[in-house]
Amino acid sequence: MTAIVIMKVAVLRLGHRISRDHRISTHCGLVARAFGADGIIYSGDHDQGLLESVKHVSEGWGGRFEVSYEKSWKKVVNEYKRKGFAIVHLTVYGIPVRKAIGKIKRKCKNKILVVVGGEKVPWEMYDLADFNISVTSQPHSEIAALAIFLDRLQGGRELNKKFAGARKIVVPQERGKKVIGK
Amino acid sequence: MTAIVIMKVAVLRLGHRISRDHRISTHCGLVARAFGADGIIYSGDHDQGLLESVKHVSEGWGGRFEVSYEKSWKKVVNEYKRKGFAIVHLTVYGIPVRKAIGKIKRKCKNKILVVVGGEKVPWEMYDLADFNISVTSQPHSEIAALAIFLDRLQGGRELNKKFAGARKIVVPQERGKKVIGK
Repeated sequence: MTAIVIMKVAVLRLGHRISRDHRISTHCGLVARAFGADGIIYSGDHDQGLLESVKHVSEGWGGRFEVSYEKSWKKVVNEYKRKGFAIVHLTVYGIPVRKAIGKIKRKCKNKILVVVGGEKVPWEMYDLADFNISVTSQPHSEIAALAIFLDRLQGGRELNKKFAGARKIVVPQERGKKVIGK
Repeated sequence: MTAIVIMKVAVLRLGHRISRDHRISTHCGLVARAFGADGIIYSGDHDQGLLESVKHVSEGWGGRFEVSYEKSWKKVVNEYKRKGFAIVHLTVYGIPVRKAIGKIKRKCKNKILVVVGGEKVPWEMYDLADFNISVTSQPHSEIAALAIFLDRLQGGRELNKKFAGARKIVVPQERGKKVIGK
């Protein structure tokens, strides 16, 4: 048994199902990284391919980003709670992000676990969360909800984030593709 | 042959592959709708299940949202160009959204085709686009890129959007779930 990885801004992906959720869960990991979180913890099915594909991107494109797996989502949530982190659960049923973000930032800017659900989120999650937060009250995508939440948490600064030690760097172009490194 | 649907803020999803892209393409459609676009056009494989699942959400949750399919992405792009729309292609290789959004909004706020790619975007797309725009220069997700782009285009107002004629409406809660209607 390995210890749960503790990060300042961590994402927990609930209920991953091997094969069916592979791409959605991969996108969650890549968005967590690109939008400035410090890492992602997957729960649900153990999916070595998923962990490796997110790690692989991180190794090539730089920055520090932790990718790990923990069978019990509840253990992760309780461990983060115990360490004084705020638990923010993104759900269509929650309080609109624009109403809650000020309070969240004041309370826990740098100690936060962002939880994104899969198909069926256990009822207990709603009670364990300090904040149940919605990004629109419409059904859409946990990937988009995660991106917008991390964006609001950082006031858009994540779009300027630099990734130290990158082997591959995009040089923005009006047309075509330019990447330094391989 | 049906005519291409013209909308003020439209999304074109390139290169859909049946089964492999089903969930990612569904999320693109739901995000387009939830974040205030007027509709989505899918190109690539024809996938009736995909079209129906996005339409089904739209019917239940209200608002007007067009969902259609067109085999040739190029035909869609050219038709929108001909009608004076700006073509904004979201790509990791493009100019950062924060640098370009002012210009895009001044030029074409309400006549815009947002193009989101699949696995392999044809080179021609980069040339046909009026703007190749990146949401971070990191690899992540077309779903997140679409959400952030639509968010910036509307200055966050999309988070308050109301969906007329909804049969189902979420009533935001601090804990648990409350939905009016069925």
